[in-house]
Amino acid sequence: MVGSSNRVESFPDATDLEASIPFPTPSLTPFQVHNVSVPQEQTTFQSLKQRLGEVFFPDDPFHQFKNKSFLRKMVLALHYFFPIFQWGSDYHLKLLKSDAISGVTIASLAIPQGISYAKLAGLPPVIGLYSSFVPPLIYSVLGSSRDLAVGPVSIASLVMGSMLREVVSPDKEPTLYLQLAFTATFFAGVFQASLGLLRLGFIVDFLSKPTLTGFMGGAAIIVSLQQLKGLLGIVHFTTKMGFIPVMQSVFENRTEWAWQTVVMGLSFLAFLLIARHISLRRPKLFWVSAAAPLTSVILSTILSFIFKAPNHGIKTIGHLQEGVNPPSVNMLDFGGPYLSLAIKTGIITGILALTEGMAVGRTFASLKNYQIDGNKEMVAIGAMNMAGSCASCYVTTGSFSRSAVNYNAGCKTALSNIVMASAVLFTMLFLMPLFYYTPNVMLSAIIIAAVIGLIDVRGAFLLWKVDKFDFLACMSAFFGVLLVSVQMGLAIAVGISLFKILIHATRPNTVILGNVPGTNSYRNLAQYREAVRVPSFLILGIESPIYFTNSMYLQERILRWVREEEERIVKSNESSLKCIVLDMAAVTAMDTNGMEALSELKKTFDKRSLDLVLANPVGEVAQKLSRSGTWELFGSEHIYMTVGEAIAAASYKCQT
Amino acid sequence: MVGSSNRVESFPDATDLEASIPFPTPSLTPFQVHNVSVPQEQTTFQSLKQRLGEVFFPDDPFHQFKNKSFLRKMVLALHYFFPIFQWGSDYHLKLLKSDAISGVTIASLAIPQGISYAKLAGLPPVIGLYSSFVPPLIYSVLGSSRDLAVGPVSIASLVMGSMLREVVSPDKEPTLYLQLAFTATFFAGVFQASLGLLRLGFIVDFLSKPTLTGFMGGAAIIVSLQQLKGLLGIVHFTTKMGFIPVMQSVFENRTEWAWQTVVMGLSFLAFLLIARHISLRRPKLFWVSAAAPLTSVILSTILSFIFKAPNHGIKTIGHLQEGVNPPSVNMLDFGGPYLSLAIKTGIITGILALTEGMAVGRTFASLKNYQIDGNKEMVAIGAMNMAGSCASCYVTTGSFSRSAVNYNAGCKTALSNIVMASAVLFTMLFLMPLFYYTPNVMLSAIIIAAVIGLIDVRGAFLLWKVDKFDFLACMSAFFGVLLVSVQMGLAIAVGISLFKILIHATRPNTVILGNVPGTNSYRNLAQYREAVRVPSFLILGIESPIYFTNSMYLQERILRWVREEEERIVKSNESSLKCIVLDMAAVTAMDTNGMEALSELKKTFDKRSLDLVLANPVGEVAQKLSRSGTWELFGSEHIYMTVGEAIAAASYKCQT
Repeated sequence: MVGSSNRVESFPDATDLEASIPFPTPSLTPFQVHNVSVPQEQTTFQSLKQRLGEVFFPDDPFHQFKNKSFLRKMVLALHYFFPIFQWGSDYHLKLLKSDAISGVTIASLAIPQGISYAKLAGLPPVIGLYSSFVPPLIYSVLGSSRDLAVGPVSIASLVMGSMLREVVSPDKEPTLYLQLAFTATFFAGVFQASLGLLRLGFIVDFLSKPTLTGFMGGAAIIVSLQQLKGLLGIVHFTTKMGFIPVMQSVFENRTEWAWQTVVMGLSFLAFLLIARHISLRRPKLFWVSAAAPLTSVILSTILSFIFKAPNHGIKTIGHLQEGVNPPSVNMLDFGGPYLSLAIKTGIITGILALTEGMAVGRTFASLKNYQIDGNKEMVAIGAMNMAGSCASCYVTTGSFSRSAVNYNAGCKTALSNIVMASAVLFTMLFLMPLFYYTPNVMLSAIIIAAVIGLIDVRGAFLLWKVDKFDFLACMSAFFGVLLVSVQMGLAIAVGISLFKILIHATRPNTVILGNVPGTNSYRNLAQYREAVRVPSFLILGIESPIYFTNSMYLQERILRWVREEEERIVKSNESSLKCIVLDMAAVTAMDTNGMEALSELKKTFDKRSLDLVLANPVGEVAQKLSRSGTWELFGSEHIYMTVGEAIAAASYKCQT
Repeated sequence: MVGSSNRVESFPDATDLEASIPFPTPSLTPFQVHNVSVPQEQTTFQSLKQRLGEVFFPDDPFHQFKNKSFLRKMVLALHYFFPIFQWGSDYHLKLLKSDAISGVTIASLAIPQGISYAKLAGLPPVIGLYSSFVPPLIYSVLGSSRDLAVGPVSIASLVMGSMLREVVSPDKEPTLYLQLAFTATFFAGVFQASLGLLRLGFIVDFLSKPTLTGFMGGAAIIVSLQQLKGLLGIVHFTTKMGFIPVMQSVFENRTEWAWQTVVMGLSFLAFLLIARHISLRRPKLFWVSAAAPLTSVILSTILSFIFKAPNHGIKTIGHLQEGVNPPSVNMLDFGGPYLSLAIKTGIITGILALTEGMAVGRTFASLKNYQIDGNKEMVAIGAMNMAGSCASCYVTTGSFSRSAVNYNAGCKTALSNIVMASAVLFTMLFLMPLFYYTPNVMLSAIIIAAVIGLIDVRGAFLLWKVDKFDFLACMSAFFGVLLVSVQMGLAIAVGISLFKILIHATRPNTVILGNVPGTNSYRNLAQYREAVRVPSFLILGIESPIYFTNSMYLQERILRWVREEEERIVKSNESSLKCIVLDMAAVTAMDTNGMEALSELKKTFDKRSLDLVLANPVGEVAQKLSRSGTWELFGSEHIYMTVGEAIAAASYKCQT
């Protein structure tokens, strides 16, 4: 609709241009016929090598090493594996200023968020700070994104918390819970790095955008509902995650609601949301929403200190251990009854963390017009989680909200992560006592304000407008997460997405083509209303590879098209059907079942004295047709390069 | 390769033909530009209705009811649901002769095979006869194939036996085993009929031809190996099915081999194989192989009677209960600990039986040039198994070998099944005592001779030649069945087949197109060696829908094509790259991720001052592009109906 109306169509006369065309001028008459070529035969090994290359090395990561001296190759390899040497070698003071400003800005966001997300995962708050210190340092050495702000993120924290809490209670068995969290983090890292090393990054692609929109929306609501505990000051809260048990728990414990907590929580939540709104409206004022959480923490802590909040039933964070990350290698547990839980949690949080990190990295890379290497990025994120699990950190990745702040604050390189880590280090060493009076309700408000941005109503509406099936996948993920469980929602959504591919492979479109007047093109009659049927011909476009899943269907569907066409012809008194042309341009692959279906059709139509003609079989398909003998069955007078040539030749044959 | 050499290319001059062309003569100059149309908007309900119609009613089963009177509709409905009224109403004596001959012929095959296959399934021999009586009668009323010979078949018998025997021993708990077999048969029938009623017949298509070739080959070998027990006269034989345990059992029990049994078995096996060979060579002598089993049973029984075989250690069938099928409704067990086993066995044998029955029906229908309705056929087969399970029958379907004999013997209608059932009835009533002396070894020989035809070495070789991936699926099914288990082999093969579809959806081909000299067509440079690159243009053909599984890959792959093209241009000193044309003819579907990928590419190339142009977006894709706003982003001066027009317009723009 759009575009076809405001089309510029005033092209000059053909004769004016003839001279200026830089390519071989086509001089097609419909009676010239061109052989359909079959691609050169390759050995099994050659085609296997090429195919595997496409599957595992589509980006040709080693192209920069070609035709270089040995020394240069070494340097390039160093740059390749440790990008810090690449940008570090021509680093200068001007960049430092930008990186320092953005580093401090994201630190002011990372500290309160780190503490909050750790609580979301059921871990002690200090683990969130630890996780904002070691992983960013490792990423800055290995990572290739210049904008990623690394640390704990809400979704991965939520999922880890919900999966582990199903089996172990963080309150009753805190040590076991901590052990499981570190072990799961280790496995997440191993899984992420292996995906990168084995170049299987495309597995992440199976979480499609609609799926993620729904999933994140559902997760954001689940997370916000969990915060009602803190926001209302409820003591006895359900450990379940679903919408229904949480709402039940909220209303059954109405007696525990504490008005002081509620007032404080709602006011700061309003402050944070207003700050967020201002920054969204004017991206230049990004620092308003960036500084808001730290400001509220400071303000609320001061208020809480002055009014002696704990005496009024407002719970505070309390004592936090000073000092840097303690080692946690000894807490990794590779045996025992919970190993499979740790592995499962690791893989699921690992995939989710990877998806967020990759999406963030790619988004900002494309904004600044540089490329990041997906597989290498996975290795970097995996390495940082493996290392993190040995230094009291839980799953981390590139955070969307903090990376956006980082980008808006003008970061230039991964050095901003180092600056942030230093600020976190300073906090851990000297500022921990200051958090003693910080009210818990503040953390809940920070979490809600952060996750509310994940609910993408506009995105969901666009899906509804453009693609109903995508919308269905989105909604299933959303309600699956909200009503059943986080893992279930994810599983349903991935299942629906895959089903969509299979249904397309099982019931492909076939369309009737007609000639677009004044051209030699044949197009879908339903799409081009100016296109006209060619008398005595039925031209069918098959819009899918022909596979075992659809060969039988296509065979029957084509027979039905022919039957319907014959009925139409009888009704409208047109000249009788003589020839069926299959436009094979979109049949990009074919298996042995497909070839059999074609042969069957050919034989059926032969018996009914109808000509079956193939137009434009593409490379791989032509090769297979010729190898299997189907080509011989058709004979080259039934295979043409274009629909136009097929029709010209067939009409000529009928005339003579 | 084939065909492109012996091509008739002597087409007359264009001018000769101009007058005789029956369609609007194209007069294309490359500078005329046609709007790319977007198909008319449909409401959600309309498009959903159309889509569901394509998925569930692709054959439009009710087209014959359109525009008919009420009475005529009733008659047609009767014909539709009970095809016997259709062919029965104009049945005449001449047909009866053919049907009687073929009916008796297949009965002579069905009786020994029925007894043998029942033993294969671990059931008493008489169940095989029962199963050759009731189901054929029901099929002749409901079924639409004229050639199907209904009864027990080897593969379904083998699978049922192997699945039930894993849990229950037919020797130790014969009643429970029989109950389970009938219950499984009932569920097989329910499953088959539901597939038909719900019009989900395409599920059967997921067993692709290569998978079945491998599976049937493996199963045939497993079945033959099992017969070594009877053929060698071994008493203590393993209950396992795998290649290794069976061979171990055969050689560990060497002391039990009985030479009399071996001699008798091998001679009759040789006789059967020679008869089979003769019929294969000369289809007119089909009766040689058809009569051979009954002949051998009679001969061996006489021999066994004369020489008092049981005294020489040759085991015989022994006493068989005379009389028609006893009812078995009371034996169906819908509770208890084995229910899930019965359901699982029912579904798997049901699918396998359906696959064989459908394939047989379709094969002979296409030989005689009539059509059978897949979904209706499933209901017929399902109904006959449900009824059978209440009349002491186990899973039955259309048998390949017996249907071929039926066809060759000249059957005309499903009446041959009624004749066969009558012959079986006569046998059950009066001839049962004659089987007392029939040696068991004879049954083994009959089974081996029957299943040996399932090993399709030539088919496997053709797969290797045409499609390595299909060959891999075939071999996995083969070795999976042989070395692991029947179910496992099936699962592996289906998994590989699905993986193939997904890998195609994840890593689609992209090819560089060039102009075929003297035409306005643009084709794959690797396929058409005469095609030439268009200077300053990079024309890419994308050979797949753009989905979430491949959008990221395609985005990166296209960037790599551009990079490589630019490197090539620098090396060869050609004019620099100005425009990238994406041929979208084979992009038959697109989801929101795909549209995002296109937008991203457009923005990236805009920054590098390269033009990105789309050629020939097809119906659904054009619609989505326009709805999502991607069309507006491109602008109509970047979307054309053909590659040729895109190039002409873009070169014109560069000139001006």
